[in-house]
Amino acid sequence: MSPRLDRQLDFLVEADKLKSILRASTLADDSRRENSGEHSWHVALSALVLADQAGPEVRIDRVIRMLLIHDLVEIDAGDTPIHDTHDTAAQDAAEAEAADRLFGLLPDDMAADLRALWDEFEAAQSPDAIFAKSIDRVQPVLLNLANGGGSWRQFNVTEQQLETRVGQKVARGAPAVWAHLQGHIQRHFNPDDRD
Amino acid sequence: MSPRLDRQLDFLVEADKLKSILRASTLADDSRRENSGEHSWHVALSALVLADQAGPEVRIDRVIRMLLIHDLVEIDAGDTPIHDTHDTAAQDAAEAEAADRLFGLLPDDMAADLRALWDEFEAAQSPDAIFAKSIDRVQPVLLNLANGGGSWRQFNVTEQQLETRVGQKVARGAPAVWAHLQGHIQRHFNPDDRD
Repeated sequence: MSPRLDRQLDFLVEADKLKSILRASTLADDSRRENSGEHSWHVALSALVLADQAGPEVRIDRVIRMLLIHDLVEIDAGDTPIHDTHDTAAQDAAEAEAADRLFGLLPDDMAADLRALWDEFEAAQSPDAIFAKSIDRVQPVLLNLANGGGSWRQFNVTEQQLETRVGQKVARGAPAVWAHLQGHIQRHFNPDDRD
Repeated sequence: MSPRLDRQLDFLVEADKLKSILRASTLADDSRRENSGEHSWHVALSALVLADQAGPEVRIDRVIRMLLIHDLVEIDAGDTPIHDTHDTAAQDAAEAEAADRLFGLLPDDMAADLRALWDEFEAAQSPDAIFAKSIDRVQPVLLNLANGGGSWRQFNVTEQQLETRVGQKVARGAPAVWAHLQGHIQRHFNPDDRD
């Protein structure tokens, strides 16, 4: 018997609950809402595929690790749709408490490492975290463009709100990706325009 | 406009379909079947958390990359439950064709890189691939132990079949993990034993 392995495996079984946390976004085929487990896979894959959009100081494997754990706190604190109104301070407190509990399931050394990585992501100041945040923000844009508007329709989001709430954050870490998507977004919100 | 970015983003939207491929395993709470997108996240996270179980020659970030892409071929070829009977040659051919199409959506340099990584995983010969395969095999064991038997019950799997089909593969890359789980597995299959 290994108490260390027991803690690692118990953490992995607890993490399974992230697959039952539903996000505002629907899948690209609009068949159902996305859950935060599969979202975490999709953003980690997106970081890998869009690695050439990251600045030279970004370590893409650290970004992928961040994205694998970035939403675990939602198991206790729930998902907060970016276009919905919410109490930011209360949500931050709930997420910090969730991080204490969830990473605390792990052996102490791993708990400290992964908590530090999650804190870095949340702070959004390091090059790795800035790029990770950009990828996390751009993935639902890809889904919404594919499924005809998804969570934008649900929350009556305007093109200008999308630019402010999402575009500026994507552009901070992956400016060429956002510049590229702006054309698609303009056509989505202005389907009758001819140019 | 960037044709390279268009290909990268089109690939990521196509990859979304993996969330609609259902596996034999059910979630830890037995509420529904797991899909291959969320499974891919869970195995990548498992590799990160069980990294200290890998041999010194294993590069864990390559393992995580492998696990992020390992099931993409199921978008075209479907999932093949390990405990079900199937035509291995036909499945291998379907998966190779799927890899041609799916990785072929990417820019040529990335397509070649990710295809080589997937081929390495499938060949299960390199230390990284052997560990990745172990993690891929152990994750459904964790779910089945948590949910009371899941896909083992569905396919009438015996303790000996589990040892042959799964245990030997897990033990190849992560022997201490399998040794640790054998006690839990024995108690699952022999609930009336007292020791």
